[in-house]
Amino acid sequence: MVISMYQASAPRFLNMLGNLSGILDKARAYSDLKQLKPATLPGCRLYPDMLPLASQVQIACDTAKGAVARLAGVENPRHEDSETTLAELQARIAKTVAFVEGFRPAQLDGSEDKDIVIKLGKTEVKWKGMQYLLGFALPNFYFHVTTAYGILRHNGLEIGKRDYIGNP
Amino acid sequence: MVISMYQASAPRFLNMLGNLSGILDKARAYSDLKQLKPATLPGCRLYPDMLPLASQVQIACDTAKGAVARLAGVENPRHEDSETTLAELQARIAKTVAFVEGFRPAQLDGSEDKDIVIKLGKTEVKWKGMQYLLGFALPNFYFHVTTAYGILRHNGLEIGKRDYIGNP
Repeated sequence: MVISMYQASAPRFLNMLGNLSGILDKARAYSDLKQLKPATLPGCRLYPDMLPLASQVQIACDTAKGAVARLAGVENPRHEDSETTLAELQARIAKTVAFVEGFRPAQLDGSEDKDIVIKLGKTEVKWKGMQYLLGFALPNFYFHVTTAYGILRHNGLEIGKRDYIGNP
Repeated sequence: MVISMYQASAPRFLNMLGNLSGILDKARAYSDLKQLKPATLPGCRLYPDMLPLASQVQIACDTAKGAVARLAGVENPRHEDSETTLAELQARIAKTVAFVEGFRPAQLDGSEDKDIVIKLGKTEVKWKGMQYLLGFALPNFYFHVTTAYGILRHNGLEIGKRDYIGNP
């Protein structure tokens, strides 16, 4: 047995997206307890020119969605970045989960050598499927989930590593 | 072709550890520019009861070291957590890189179904090799690298996503 492209992608994204939504559950309770405005926590940042919590969640979602879509060679649907509340961000996650859950292993397996082209600003970067998944999509995905966690932790939410790791 | 346990582990750890050391290069220059004490940035945190930068780097290193050691079934050497400066943290990374670089693919490949037992506090958690790597070691590794990045970013260091992703 070895690792398939499916095993290294869809179940990993789904586990972490579920954990992220659970963290947002706790953030909603915290926001209510502190009587914060609904848009306050989604707008929090670690530094003025870093993206706020809402963007971190949106990009985590889009990284997962884009990875499975590109590897499977199906259209990558555009999800508008219109969320301003924690509940809306959870709906964005749910929409992403539903999309990723729709992929069967056979759609992703065998995509190791597939040519993947990503636009990073004005530059086109070319990858093979495995390198794209392991070296770009997964590290980026974990970056944004962790940064969402860090923003909330920095703002006093009592969460711990178990909320992040979940039950993989 | 499919993904081997080696491909999903050692090269990924090595790339990110190199990127993390590069980020610490920038942090050293920043620390000098601001005339900070050598222990100031390593002691910075995102919240009082979160671990500081030094611990984030140490745990990232130990997660990489422990993963390849456990999967290969070789002794996991203990690295003391004695670093108090950025230069010492880079030496810790270099020591970890040297350890991970010592593994040949044949030592890690085939460890997908290997029984891995991890002590989390008082609890013993049992995993199969693949689940341990994809669901625990890699997410934890990226968590601590990203949190190191976030702590430095929060403290004004001008770094960007490219410093984190590097050239995978």
